Order: sequence, then C-alpha cells, then structure tokens
Amino acid sequence: MDNIEKVCDYLLKNNNYLILMHDSPDGDTVGSGYALCRALRNIGKNADCACGDTIPDKYGYMTKGVEPFGGEYEHIISVDVADIKLIKKLGEMYKDRIELCIDHHQSNTGYAKNTLLKSDAAATCEIIYEVVKALGCGITPKIAECLYTGITTDTGCFKYSNVTPETHRIAAELMETGIDTAEINRVMFDTKSFARLKVERLALESMELTLDGKCAILVLTDEMQKMAPPEDLEGIKAITRQIEGVQIGITMRQKSTNGYKISIRTHPPFDASAICGKLGGGGHLRAAGCEVELPLIEAKAAVLNAVREVTGL
Amino acid sequence: MDNIEKVCDYLLKNNNYLILMHDSPDGDTVGSGYALCRALRNIGKNADCACGDTIPDKYGYMTKGVEPFGGEYEHIISVDVADIKLIKKLGEMYKDRIELCIDHHQSNTGYAKNTLLKSDAAATCEIIYEVVKALGCGITPKIAECLYTGITTDTGCFKYSNVTPETHRIAAELMETGIDTAEINRVMFDTKSFARLKVERLALESMELTLDGKCAILVLTDEMQKMAPPEDLEGIKAITRQIEGVQIGITMRQKSTNGYKISIRTHPPFDASAICGKLGGGGHLRAAGCEVELPLIEAKAAVLNAVREVTGL
Repeated sequence: MDNIEKVCDYLLKNNNYLILMHDSPDGDTVGSGYALCRALRNIGKNADCACGDTIPDKYGYMTKGVEPFGGEYEHIISVDVADIKLIKKLGEMYKDRIELCIDHHQSNTGYAKNTLLKSDAAATCEIIYEVVKALGCGITPKIAECLYTGITTDTGCFKYSNVTPETHRIAAELMETGIDTAEINRVMFDTKSFARLKVERLALESMELTLDGKCAILVLTDEMQKMAPPEDLEGIKAITRQIEGVQIGITMRQKSTNGYKISIRTHPPFDASAICGKLGGGGHLRAAGCEVELPLIEAKAAVLNAVREVTGL
Repeated sequence: MDNIEKVCDYLLKNNNYLILMHDSPDGDTVGSGYALCRALRNIGKNADCACGDTIPDKYGYMTKGVEPFGGEYEHIISVDVADIKLIKKLGEMYKDRIELCIDHHQSNTGYAKNTLLKSDAAATCEIIYEVVKALGCGITPKIAECLYTGITTDTGCFKYSNVTPETHRIAAELMETGIDTAEINRVMFDTKSFARLKVERLALESMELTLDGKCAILVLTDEMQKMAPPEDLEGIKAITRQIEGVQIGITMRQKSTNGYKISIRTHPPFDASAICGKLGGGGHLRAAGCEVELPLIEAKAAVLNAVREVTGL
C-alpha cells in the first residue's frame, strides 16, 4: 500500500476503521484523522478517530458531530504518526495491528504493516486530500476545513520552506468549497491567551543579546511556565530567531531547580546540532536541543561556551 | 482602459513610463511598481519607478539593479494608489498627467484618467500578474519575487479574508519560477528589531483588560514610540484583538502631551466605526479611529464610555 490506488482499494474493500492520531495532537494529525474519518463515513463505512491526549478546544470545529459508531474496530490506521513512541497508550493497545500509516515525516520509523509516505508533502493533510479525492466521495466543506487546518498549521500559514506550488493549489481547491479560511487562521495563529501574553512579556524582559547582537538568550523560568498551560506557550521558542541580526537564538526552559532544557535555533551558516552536540544533545542543522544540569548562570555560561567553540564568534 | 487587454494595448503602443508608488510604501505598491517596471523593460520599453518616501531596506531585493533609464517620462502610471493624497510630492508634480491607475482599493477616488480597478483582488500585485502575463513577456523569477511579495504582505501571508482561490493559484504559479518564498516571508513577517521587541514588552506591560475581559486597552506613550522607528511599530495595533476573548481592542498612541490617536479593532458583532463616531472619528466596521485631546486617564474614560454606549457592555 505504498501508493494512493492501493490505499483506496484497501479502504473501499474493508470496514470498521479506527484512525489513530499522535499524542499532543496538532492541526495536521487532527485534520488528517477527521478528514479521513468523515470521508469514510460519507462512503458508508464505519470509522472513528482516537487520540491518547485530549484534543484542544480550538480544534473542536473539526471533531464536532463525529460520535463513536459503537462497534468493534477491525482495521487500524495511523495518520501523521512518525513513530510508535508518539502514540504511547494507543501504541500499547494496537501496536501489532496497525495496518496502514499515512504520513509525511521523512523520519517515519516504518512501525506499521504498510506505510504511505510522501515526505515532500508539506502536511499529512495533503496526502489525505489525494486519498479522499481518489475515494470518489467528494470534498465536503467539513472535510475541507479539516484538510485546510492541517495544511495551514504545518506550514505556519504558508510561510515555511515546506510549502510547494501543490500546497497552494490544494488550498485553492479547498477554499472553493466555501470554507472560512480567515476564521480558521484567526483561531490558529491570531489568538493568544492573556496568560501567554504575560509570559511573553516576562520572557522578553529576561532576554539578553550577546556576541555582538548575533546571539539572543531567553529564559523561561519554572514560575513563568506555571503561569500558562503548556499549549499556550507553543512558539515562544521562535521569538529569539525573529530578532533582526540574531543568528543564534537560545531558549532555556527551567525543568528543575538547577536543570534547563535548551533549544537552539540558528540561521545559516550556524549549526545548531553541533552546538547542542557539545552539551550531549543533538537535532537538526537549524533546530536542536540539549539539557544542562546547572544553576542558571553556569548553565548560560556553558551554552555560550559551546556557541563560541562551534561558531568561532 | 478598464480591462487587461486595453491596458496591454496602451503599454505595448507607448514608451518611456514612470510608475508611481504610494507614500509610506508597502510590499504591494513596491511589488506592483517593480514587477511592472521589470516586465516593461523585458519587452524593450523604458520604465522607471518613483516613490515620495524612501523605500525601506527590507524591500531592496525588488528594487536592486533597476537603475533610472535617464530619459524623459512620457506616460505616467500609478499602482496601488487609491487617492492622489497618498502621493503628496509626486501628486503635485504629475497630477494632471496620470494616464492609468492600476489598483484594488474599492475606495479608489478615480483621480487618474483611466483606472483598472479590481476590488476583489487581494493585492494590486494580483492584477499586475494578469497584466504581465497578457504582455506576453513571461514571469521571470525577479518579477515573481515582486508579485509574491505584494500578495503575501497584503494578505498577512494568506491569512486574511481577502484571500481567494485565485490568490493561491497565482502563488503556486509564482513559486514555480523557483523563488524562495520562505525567505521572503521570513523577512516580511518574522524579523523584528530589538527596539520593536522592547516597545512590545512595555506596551504589553501597560495593557489592561476591562469590560469582563471583552475589551483590551494598550497605550503607546510618546516615550515608547521614540524607542523605535515608526516602520518597526507596524502591526502593534493588532495585538489587542489577538487576545482570547477580547472583542474590542483599543490602542492609544500619544500624539502630544494631552492628545491621543485611538485605533479600535473589533470582532463581530461590534461596530468599531460607531464607537469612533461618538468621538468624532470613523472608519470601517471592524477597524476605525479617532483623536482625543485629553490627559491619559480622561482619554481612556472617554473611549470606554463610547464603547459602553455603543455596545451596551
């Protein structure tokens, strides 16, 4: 089942599906799950979605009205789940029964019996769009809302380098069902809790520029993190790299009295993964992480030393 | 010249163009001007662009390499200029000579001899895209960068309600020339000066929630505004309306010791223009403004009174 036709044959032939979405659900996994579930129901199949964590309220418009069908699950599918570790509870329940995984992560571990992987897709929802079209049931506005949500959230509203011409073409077709994309984007991108703004303010207050303005360090203390629920703090790590002139953005999240989780984001040519490697961590070229067990001042010094050693700044 | 064909005939028949962009230039006017200028040059015409204000450095990739052709201007065109008032100096120089205005603002005053107006276009660059295609000179990567910039900046990176399926289709075609849209978006949306962040922090500090969390008031004092150049402060007005639960966002910009410029942004059903109307101002249903000549505390009270009267909150 490594292409759309085989996946469609499988979906049309069988019944009673359970679609697994990853823990800490995001717009792409929820959009993929509910778009596929709604499409299967529209062609007369039984299908449900399941997630190990509660789905945040802001995604409610996608899940609304999809009540459990109340039967036995015969066929288990996962969507946007790159690794069995990303579905803790559900993985334990279903690990040997996942017949199909639909995903766009290059890093997919191949844990499912079959995997439809398209790593050039900006979002799993782009692949689900192809599947739903091939199923022949048509894109309803409700399905379009789900697919658009996955695409807009995984691309930062068409901002990132994963966007392709195909991404825009799919968005155009989804818009033609009459959905209110501006409202979806408002909820996804332009709604911050007052608590989040408070934390942002304190974080900005703590921020330091160093190495001739090329490096910014932002600290999120335990106290600051307690002021807002974790989902409200998504994206705070991005602040440092947005500052004009900053090449290396460092966010230090306090995990214990003397323990910090470090996130490093860089612009070319600086290698975030090499910097974090010096401190026992790793990651990608422009986004990496590590942990440091030291009091704040010493932790900062250790990170800056690693930055200096690797970059020569 | 109210359609693409007539505009093309005019452009193909004549020569020695000057293209006027509006004062306080934004991505759409600069993108429109330089895309059209480059296209005209590509078909062997002489063309220059002019703006009454300095074009900000961040738009430099659009203007680079377009040197004045050094001849007399015979035909004057304006792009994205809704009103002659928006081109102060240039308007005085050329006001009776503007033969063609290409624009997408519904409010266009019709000051030019001919106007190609498409108010359903999300950006003037969408119209220029049609013109350039109709000229038959092809969309080069450089022209695509200009057009993409106008479209992405006028739609908040495809976020707002002015986006249509056509907007996405044009973006797809522009991307196919191989341009780096992620880099354009990074420069346009994800680059803030350190000074801007400082002002943002102080503004957040001053922010008050009132009327049961439905109304947020943010004050930009004279002192705060002096901390960063005006172009760095674009978009700060949007902060208040982004807060979860806030229906009426008020930004008060100090203009003199006891004078404030008020910007009001609302969510449905609240009428920003009616609120500002109470204080001698006006505007659109969801975005309006007025000025108040009072010390801060009294100015705040006056605005909140107007909010209460109009909304019944």
